[in-house]
Amino acid sequence: MIIVMNKTATEQQIDSVVEKIKHLGHGVNISRGTNRIVIGAIGDESKLTPEMFDPMPGVEYSMHIVKQYKIVSRESHAENSIVHVRNIPIGGEKIQIIAGPCSVETQEQMDLAAQQVAAAGCRLMRGGAFKPRTNPYTFQGKGVDGLTIFRTAADKYDLPIVTELMDIRMLDTFLEQDVDLIQIGTRNMQNFDLLKEVGRINKPVILKRGLSATINEWLMAAEYIAAGGNHQIIFCERGIRTFETAYRNVLDVTCIPVLKRETHLPVIIDPSHAGGKAWMVPALSRAAIAAGADGLLVEMHPNPCDAWCDADQALNPQELTELMQSLKGIANAIGRSL
Amino acid sequence: MIIVMNKTATEQQIDSVVEKIKHLGHGVNISRGTNRIVIGAIGDESKLTPEMFDPMPGVEYSMHIVKQYKIVSRESHAENSIVHVRNIPIGGEKIQIIAGPCSVETQEQMDLAAQQVAAAGCRLMRGGAFKPRTNPYTFQGKGVDGLTIFRTAADKYDLPIVTELMDIRMLDTFLEQDVDLIQIGTRNMQNFDLLKEVGRINKPVILKRGLSATINEWLMAAEYIAAGGNHQIIFCERGIRTFETAYRNVLDVTCIPVLKRETHLPVIIDPSHAGGKAWMVPALSRAAIAAGADGLLVEMHPNPCDAWCDADQALNPQELTELMQSLKGIANAIGRSL
Amino acid sequence: MIIVMNKTATEQQIDSVVEKIKHLGHGVNISRGTNRIVIGAIGDESKLTPEMFDPMPGVEYSMHIVKQYKIVSRESHAENSIVHVRNIPIGGEKIQIIAGPCSVETQEQMDLAAQQVAAAGCRLMRGGAFKPRTNPYTFQGKGVDGLTIFRTAADKYDLPIVTELMDIRMLDTFLEQDVDLIQIGTRNMQNFDLLKEVGRINKPVILKRGLSATINEWLMAAEYIAAGGNHQIIFCERGIRTFETAYRNVLDVTCIPVLKRETHLPVIIDPSHAGGKAWMVPALSRAAIAAGADGLLVEMHPNPCDAWCDADQALNPQELTELMQSLKGIANAIGRSL
Amino acid sequence: MIIVMNKTATEQQIDSVVEKIKHLGHGVNISRGTNRIVIGAIGDESKLTPEMFDPMPGVEYSMHIVKQYKIVSRESHAENSIVHVRNIPIGGEKIQIIAGPCSVETQEQMDLAAQQVAAAGCRLMRGGAFKPRTNPYTFQGKGVDGLTIFRTAADKYDLPIVTELMDIRMLDTFLEQDVDLIQIGTRNMQNFDLLKEVGRINKPVILKRGLSATINEWLMAAEYIAAGGNHQIIFCERGIRTFETAYRNVLDVTCIPVLKRETHLPVIIDPSHAGGKAWMVPALSRAAIAAGADGLLVEMHPNPCDAWCDADQALNPQELTELMQSLKGIANAIGRSL
Repeated sequence: MIIVMNKTATEQQIDSVVEKIKHLGHGVNISRGTNRIVIGAIGDESKLTPEMFDPMPGVEYSMHIVKQYKIVSRESHAENSIVHVRNIPIGGEKIQIIAGPCSVETQEQMDLAAQQVAAAGCRLMRGGAFKPRTNPYTFQGKGVDGLTIFRTAADKYDLPIVTELMDIRMLDTFLEQDVDLIQIGTRNMQNFDLLKEVGRINKPVILKRGLSATINEWLMAAEYIAAGGNHQIIFCERGIRTFETAYRNVLDVTCIPVLKRETHLPVIIDPSHAGGKAWMVPALSRAAIAAGADGLLVEMHPNPCDAWCDADQALNPQELTELMQSLKGIANAIGRSL
Repeated sequence: MIIVMNKTATEQQIDSVVEKIKHLGHGVNISRGTNRIVIGAIGDESKLTPEMFDPMPGVEYSMHIVKQYKIVSRESHAENSIVHVRNIPIGGEKIQIIAGPCSVETQEQMDLAAQQVAAAGCRLMRGGAFKPRTNPYTFQGKGVDGLTIFRTAADKYDLPIVTELMDIRMLDTFLEQDVDLIQIGTRNMQNFDLLKEVGRINKPVILKRGLSATINEWLMAAEYIAAGGNHQIIFCERGIRTFETAYRNVLDVTCIPVLKRETHLPVIIDPSHAGGKAWMVPALSRAAIAAGADGLLVEMHPNPCDAWCDADQALNPQELTELMQSLKGIANAIGRSL
Repeated sequence: MIIVMNKTATEQQIDSVVEKIKHLGHGVNISRGTNRIVIGAIGDESKLTPEMFDPMPGVEYSMHIVKQYKIVSRESHAENSIVHVRNIPIGGEKIQIIAGPCSVETQEQMDLAAQQVAAAGCRLMRGGAFKPRTNPYTFQGKGVDGLTIFRTAADKYDLPIVTELMDIRMLDTFLEQDVDLIQIGTRNMQNFDLLKEVGRINKPVILKRGLSATINEWLMAAEYIAAGGNHQIIFCERGIRTFETAYRNVLDVTCIPVLKRETHLPVIIDPSHAGGKAWMVPALSRAAIAAGADGLLVEMHPNPCDAWCDADQALNPQELTELMQSLKGIANAIGRSL
Repeated sequence: MIIVMNKTATEQQIDSVVEKIKHLGHGVNISRGTNRIVIGAIGDESKLTPEMFDPMPGVEYSMHIVKQYKIVSRESHAENSIVHVRNIPIGGEKIQIIAGPCSVETQEQMDLAAQQVAAAGCRLMRGGAFKPRTNPYTFQGKGVDGLTIFRTAADKYDLPIVTELMDIRMLDTFLEQDVDLIQIGTRNMQNFDLLKEVGRINKPVILKRGLSATINEWLMAAEYIAAGGNHQIIFCERGIRTFETAYRNVLDVTCIPVLKRETHLPVIIDPSHAGGKAWMVPALSRAAIAAGADGLLVEMHPNPCDAWCDADQALNPQELTELMQSLKGIANAIGRSL
C-alpha cells in the first residue's frame, strides 16, 4: 500500500499516517520527492484498505500495490488448473464446446437436442431450466420439471449437463438432480450469498462475467467461491456492456490473455449471448479459440425459429456441425485440439 | 410491434410474417415504402417479442412500439404516487433526506448516529447490517445482530429504518425486525427471485439502479416487484459505471426528469456511493434536488475516520447539518420544502 | 513516478531500473515490501513516462504520482480565474447564461433570436455557422456568411458572440469577424493542431469535453492551449457517452466539483446537447447551477419547430425566460446571482 | 421513416404530421394499433430527419427505417471491394500485415525497421511522423523530416508506406512525399473538414474508429470521404473505450462480421493500440484474423525498450516473425493466406 500526501501536507499529518500504519502492524518507508511525499506501508496489504487513509488530513490518495485475490491468482499457483466435469477436462490441451438450447421446453426437444449435440462432437450439454428474463411477463423457464427433462435427455447420450442456478433455495434440488456443472449467471456475479453457497459444495462452477464487471471484480467474485473451499471454477466471458448499439454486447477477447496471466483457472466464452445473433456466432467463436479460450458455451436449438426464448441467437444443428469443423482448424493452428 | 423486411424480401417471406402475426391473434398493417416494407402487428404488443420474428427469412429487424412496463408506468397512472414509510410521505411536496452510517458497528455508534440524524432534521435513518463487499476478506456486516442494534437506536428517536436485503432467506428476519423500508441493492437489481419475493410483501421497497442498468431495465425490474402486488416502490439512482476513472461512478441526474415522465413512483438519489468521496456529496445533493429528486440517501457517520467501511464517503454530523441548510434553499427555489 | 517490480524480479533487474532512473537525472528510493519492491524516482516527473520502464524485464507496472497538467492546475494557481469576454466576466460570482440557436439560418431569424436572448436577460449569444454533422448529406451550416449574419444581429443588442471553430484554416476569418468567444467542439477536443493554433491567439476559448474524454484528458487538452500562451479557457461539459439509450448523453454533474478542485478555470454546462430534448433542459440546467457551474450554453430558437437542425432540443423564447427565472432562485440559494 | 404518436394524440395532431409528410413530398401510411398510431412516411428517407417530427405536438418519437450511409453500404455494392495500395491488394483473399514503429526516430532506426518488416514477410510498412499525444510536453513526432526519412527507408525495400495525417494543411506535403496510404487517426474520425479533404484526393485512406464511435457513426464518417469521390477506404478497429481499466481499450472483434455485412470495404485491426501491451498482441492478432479481418496494423520496433513512444506495445523483430508464422495457420484454417 502506498499513501500519497498532498503537496501542502504538514509534518504532523505525515506523522499521523506513519503512526496509523505502525499501529496496524506494518513497517514504513517514506520517499520524499520533489512534488509529493509517498509513504509506503510494508507488510501484508490485505489488512489495509485505501479507506483507512483517504479520509485523513493531508492524504491525496492511497492505493494497493498488489491485487487482492489470492487463491485464484496465478501468483499463488503457477500451473494451469484443469477442472474436471465428470471425466471431461476443461482447461487442458483439449478445447471443450458446450452446446444446447437456451431453455428446456419439452422432453422431445431436449432428446433431439442431446442427440444433435453429441452427433456434432460436443462432450457437454447446456440448457436452462430457470431463466433470468428482463420482462416479468415472459416465459420464466420450466423450473424443477425442466431439470428432470434435461437430466433424462442428456443421460441418453452420456453428456454432463450445465445449467444456471439463480436462487439459493434451489441448490439442494440441483445437487439431487446431480447437475454436473453449475452456472452462475451474469446478473448474479456479485450475488455474494449465492457465491458463498456454491463455495461450500463440491461441484464445478461456471462464473459468468457481469455485464459491466471489471476483470478485478470478476476475479474477486471467484475468490468468494474459492474462499469457501471450492476451487473448481471456470470463468465465462459473455460480452460486456458498452455504448455500441449495433449489437447486444461487445465480446471482450482481450480478457482471455489477461485472465490467462492473472489466474490459473480455465476461461471459456459464450459467443451466443455476446452478439445476440446466430450469424455472428461462427466469427466470434473462431476469435475466442484463436485468442486462447479453453472452450465455448454455444446455443443450439433443433429448430431455432420455434425456440421459446432467444430464438435469434441459436444455431441450428447443421450450423453447429459446421462450426465444430471450422474450429478444428483454428485449434490445430495454435497447437490444441477439439 | 413493427417488422422491417429486407430490401430483397420475397412476397412469400412477407406472407409468412403476416401469417404468423395473424396466427398469434393480431391484426396486420403493411406499409410498402421505397426501400423497405414495414409490417405492423396490431393488438396487444406484450404478447409478441422481436425474437419471434427476427429469425424468420427476409426479416431485417423487428421492434416494440410501446414500452413493456405497465403497472409502474406513468401511462397507467397519471398522478404521482406517494409511498408512505410509516407516516413519512416520499414522493410528495416534501423532500426526504435519509441519513445514517454505511454499516452498523456498535450500539453506541448507532445511538449517537440516530441522535445526530434526528438533530439534523432528517426523518428516516439508513444503516447496513448486511454489506455487499467486493472483497471476501473484508468486513461483511454485523448481520442479524446489526438489525437489532439498528432497530433499538432508531426507535429512541422514532426514525423509520432503511436497510439492505441481500439474501432471500433473510426476508422473514427483516419482517420480524419490522424493517420499515427494504433496500434492494445495486448488485441485486436483476436478482429476479429476490424481486419476486419482495413483490409479495406489504412493505415499501427502495430499488437501486444497477451499475450499468438502462432506464428500461430498471423499470422492468420494478415491474417484477409490482407484478407481485407490492406497488410501494422507490427508485434510487446511485451513479452509473462509465469510462471515467477520476471518480467512482457518474451520478446520472438526467434519469430524474426521465423517470418522472415514465413512472408515477418516487425517485431518490444516493450521492455518497455515486462520487465515492464525502467532499463531492454537497454538490451532488444540491444537483439532485434541483433536478427534481424526491429525496436523498446520504451516508453520515459520527466519526468518519473510524468508520468500518466506506470511511471516505461519509459526512460528519456537522457537514450533514450544513447540507440540510443548503438544501432548504434549493427546495424553496423549486417550490418544495425539506 | 513509482516503478513496481514483479514478485520474481532479480536484483540485476532492480539495478537496471535504478540505473536508468539515475541516468535520466533523478534520485531513487527503494521500498522493499513483503510482496513487491517499489522503486521511487525522485525529481521532475514530467521528464519520465511509464513507457520508459514498463518494457524493462522485471517491471510489473509504473505510474506517475502527480498529474501532468500544470498551467491549468489549481496547484499552480490557487485562486479562481475569471475569463472576460469583452466586459462580461465568466467564472466569478455572476452566473452567465449563453443562449441562441443551434445554427445561423437567416438574418431575420438571428435578429429575432438576438432580441429574445437579450430580453430574457442573457448577456452572451451562441449560434453555429459551421456545423459538425454526423451525416454528410445534411445541412452543414451557412459558413462565412453565417458569421456575418450572426455578428450583425448580435451587435444590435451588444451581445458578445460564441461560435464553433472546426477548421484551422478558418481561424483568420474568425479573427476578422472578431468572434468574441471561440468554441472548440466535442469532436475536436483532441484535434491537437487546432488546439495549438487557438493557443497562440488572444481570444477566450470554450473547450468542450469529448464524448468519452476523461477529466484528465480534458485537462491535458486545455494544457495544449495554455502551453501556447492563451490562458483564457472555459471548460464546457455537454454530456458523456454511456450505455444508456433513453437519452442522447449523460450529463456529468460530478465533473463540476471535480474540475473546481483540479483547475482554477471556469466551468460551464451545455444542457441542450446533453439530453437532446428541450423538455429535459430546465431540470439539467438547475442541476448544473446547483452543483456549482459558472454558466450555461443553452439552445433557444424563435420557433423550434422550424429550426434547421436540432429542432427537438431548442427552447422557445418563453421557455428561456422561464428558465432564467427559475435559475435565479437556485443561484441565490448558493450565494450567487444571475 | 416512422412517426409514433402519443397515446393521447388528437386527430388534429395526426393530421398535422400527415400534412408535413405530404408537404415534404412523401406518401403516408397510417397504422392504427391498440395503443399507438404509427405513421409511415413513404419515399426517400434521406430527405427526412427525426428532428423534423419530434418537436411536433402529439409525437412520441420518430425514427429512420433504413441506414443513412449509401456509397459505403453493402446494399449499394454487393461484392467485396479490394483497395489497392500500389500493387498490394487489401480486402481480397490475401491478408496483409502492416508493421513498423510507432514513430519515426532516425534514418538508422527506420532503415533497420524496414529491413526487418520486409524480412518478416510483411508487404506494407507503418510509421508516424506526426504523433497525436495526450500530453503537450511529450515528443510530438519528427514532422516533415520524419516523412522523408520514412520514404527513404521504405523505398529501399519497396514497401508502400502508411502514416497518419492530423493537420489538413499537411495534405500537400503528404502528396509530395507520395504517402501510399493515408491514415486518419482515432481522434480525427469526426474531423469532418479533414474527411472532406481526403475525400477529394486519389489515395487510399485508412479510417480508424473513434474511441467511442458507434458502427453507424463510423460508417457515416466513411461516407463523408466517399461522398467526395474517394472510395478507397479501409476501416481500422483499434479498441474502444469501456469501463474496464485492466487494459487500455477493448478490441471489438464483433465489429468485423458486422462491418462485413454492412459494407463492401476492407476491415483491418490494430492490436497494438487496442491492448496497449506487446504481450497481448499475438492473442489479439489471431482473434482478429480468425474473425475475418483483412489485415493488421502492428507496431514493431528494432529495439522496443529504446522506442521514443509507446515502447511497451511494440513487438521486437523476432516476435513479429513468430506472429507471422502463427497467423499463417489461422489464415489457412479459414481458407485464406498471408
